[in-house]
Amino acid sequence: MTVPLAPLEVLERARRGEHVDPDSVRGFVRTWLGGSATDAQMAALCMLVATLGLDREGVRALTSALVASGDRLDLASLDPTGDVHGTGAVGDPASLVVPPLAAALGVRMAVMGDRGRGHVGGLIDKLESIPGYRAQLELRDFVLQVRDTGCAVISQTRRLAPGEERLAVLRDQTGTMDVTELVAASLMSRALAGGATSVAVDVTCGSGAPFAGPDAAAAAAELMRWVAEPWGRTVRWVVTPMDAPRGRMVGNALEVREAGELLRGGGIAGTREVAATLAGEIAEAAGVAEPGEGRGRAARALADGSALAAAERWVEAQGGDPEVWSDPTRLPEAPLRFEVVAPADGVLTALPARDVGEAVRRLGAGRLHPAQQVDHAVGVELLAGIGEPVLRGDPVAYVHARDEGLGNACVATLTACLRVGAGSPATPAVLRRGTEAPGA
Amino acid sequence: MTVPLAPLEVLERARRGEHVDPDSVRGFVRTWLGGSATDAQMAALCMLVATLGLDREGVRALTSALVASGDRLDLASLDPTGDVHGTGAVGDPASLVVPPLAAALGVRMAVMGDRGRGHVGGLIDKLESIPGYRAQLELRDFVLQVRDTGCAVISQTRRLAPGEERLAVLRDQTGTMDVTELVAASLMSRALAGGATSVAVDVTCGSGAPFAGPDAAAAAAELMRWVAEPWGRTVRWVVTPMDAPRGRMVGNALEVREAGELLRGGGIAGTREVAATLAGEIAEAAGVAEPGEGRGRAARALADGSALAAAERWVEAQGGDPEVWSDPTRLPEAPLRFEVVAPADGVLTALPARDVGEAVRRLGAGRLHPAQQVDHAVGVELLAGIGEPVLRGDPVAYVHARDEGLGNACVATLTACLRVGAGSPATPAVLRRGTEAPGA
Repeated sequence: MTVPLAPLEVLERARRGEHVDPDSVRGFVRTWLGGSATDAQMAALCMLVATLGLDREGVRALTSALVASGDRLDLASLDPTGDVHGTGAVGDPASLVVPPLAAALGVRMAVMGDRGRGHVGGLIDKLESIPGYRAQLELRDFVLQVRDTGCAVISQTRRLAPGEERLAVLRDQTGTMDVTELVAASLMSRALAGGATSVAVDVTCGSGAPFAGPDAAAAAAELMRWVAEPWGRTVRWVVTPMDAPRGRMVGNALEVREAGELLRGGGIAGTREVAATLAGEIAEAAGVAEPGEGRGRAARALADGSALAAAERWVEAQGGDPEVWSDPTRLPEAPLRFEVVAPADGVLTALPARDVGEAVRRLGAGRLHPAQQVDHAVGVELLAGIGEPVLRGDPVAYVHARDEGLGNACVATLTACLRVGAGSPATPAVLRRGTEAPGA
Repeated sequence: MTVPLAPLEVLERARRGEHVDPDSVRGFVRTWLGGSATDAQMAALCMLVATLGLDREGVRALTSALVASGDRLDLASLDPTGDVHGTGAVGDPASLVVPPLAAALGVRMAVMGDRGRGHVGGLIDKLESIPGYRAQLELRDFVLQVRDTGCAVISQTRRLAPGEERLAVLRDQTGTMDVTELVAASLMSRALAGGATSVAVDVTCGSGAPFAGPDAAAAAAELMRWVAEPWGRTVRWVVTPMDAPRGRMVGNALEVREAGELLRGGGIAGTREVAATLAGEIAEAAGVAEPGEGRGRAARALADGSALAAAERWVEAQGGDPEVWSDPTRLPEAPLRFEVVAPADGVLTALPARDVGEAVRRLGAGRLHPAQQVDHAVGVELLAGIGEPVLRGDPVAYVHARDEGLGNACVATLTACLRVGAGSPATPAVLRRGTEAPGA
């Protein structure tokens, strides 16, 4: 069968469990983007993929159709180039640190960041809490900044993979945001349109992530790597846990503040480990670090101030105040602060990432409807992580709020979801790495 | 869980194979009809039902939500009342005969008919080939005609179960027209809104039908019966084969012509059997025929002219020319006639209903897009049925066409799909009856 099937035939065949060839998948997406197939048909396809799956050639076809929905940047003349994507983490200062950290190692970082979605914050929302930061550059200016400064992070543009954004709307409506094949196609379509050669992917798993466990996350990551292969891109991946927030801060400006600590050589070990691993993978893939040495070099770049210098150059080039990394008082601050206290003596054993993310979203740091303005100042500051001791009646978190009612609601949610117990096994910050992954 | 789930939660749970309670299904449909859930979400639900199923309480909830989308006729004062529905047959004069036939037995027939859809013709398109016939009555006039004439057949109205029509559009787009649960909910929502107490359902199976075999068809029929039970409706069903066209005529006016033959005591045995069985079931369920005697009484009503008289009264009351049943020259006739000849001596062993129905649709008897006007005159007249002898070079069918190109295309399709061989086992016209079906 060499003639691509019409969308209705694709749905009928896929429903019966019959194989759908890649050209038909590509034709489906093209027909939908062209307006001759309906959103209802695309939503039905998403649900079919969710329930019956899609083979990897189909995922590649879906990805390339999404890439073809817009322009594609050609960064070949700027090599070595790098990019970083993730499936979403709650409290994620590492996502702010990786671009300048990899840049400090010699990779030209060209990153298209997310807005917050659901309970997960977005890189662009965080960066826009930096006074003056301009996330919406013309693509020409983006490329020039990557060339001249070595790092640029912009928001998703209508010109690159616009189909991915339309698909995300339908996935959001149909509860298919966590479907492996669709996650892989979405992330890779943006990475491929973005044009960088070495791509790191942070795939999260656990109760606050799209994937339940490390096996599912690694399978998704490997699928991404395979999808990008014929485009000449090297995808390196890590699988990270997302049962509790990764960092100590959850909220836009608060995460910039914690990222500043990391860039100044501080911060907590787990977040530093994630940032250094991702940046190290990019550096190795791009050939600016020897195999096995990327992570160590990244850790040194955090300690010796070279990452901080790269971060200052980047933010300044993009119109932002470069002093924020060292002087968090330049960031917006919320007027009210509430305490969440420990209910007992013991160690913190649980703090569900999804609940915390959802609580911070409702505080105003995220959006409950698409047009909502985010409040950059509000969020949650954790004083202890999982496995750390707490004392009954002592604060375990501060809620930074603009409004008393919202602040109290956030305190109530955190109080209800945190657990204090006798002990909790430590979870490594990085569960798996795909560096030496064999071909799938 | 007593609070109905929001549409997104319904999709997420159903996708994971978790049970979705009936109130949540009802709430989903209500939210969608109210505009707060999108067509994409409803289409995703249809696909979930198609792949993972929906329990029968869910089907009942879906049905009642569709009924609640519009008005509901109350025909209690007119008892005994009857109605007939079907899952679609190619070449189906029986559907034209059942209403006046059951009326002749003493049941007041209140029928809301279909338009043609896909390869299957529609009762209303057929009736509109009768000069003067008005299918769009006000509901008040419909009820008065049922009371005074004993039979009325109108087209689906925006006032009764309008949600069913909106759902059918999405099912059509997503290739889920043949999903048992959705078929049952659609048919029953229309029957329940229509208000008649005794309902016969003709459930087809085979290559030209939504159900592959008699078991699947009977399961769908039993589901319908169960769904209608709490509404105080008696559903009787038959399962009929739909591998080849049922009658000898396929096309609107042509099927009216064949229905006239049946009403005058003629026609082919199989179609007569289907019509008499369905009308007999209605008569028994309505209490105007003793158990086991309905079919025989119906056969006599076809032979003795009482069904013909009822058909004339009905059509005349609805503005149509009552003479069409006896004088087919009053019906529109196509200007061109083409022959399809037998390729060999033997018996006709195959004539796929779906191919024939699709060919007749393309001839102009059906619609290729929703706004298309149907051509009442065109169609196919079969000269032999499955298992009947044919001689090489002799005509086995006439194509009645308005246009030479379309006529030739239809001839080519029929020539390609018919099979002549050594013999073919006779298929009974009615495969199963649900008269004495036990409670499910």
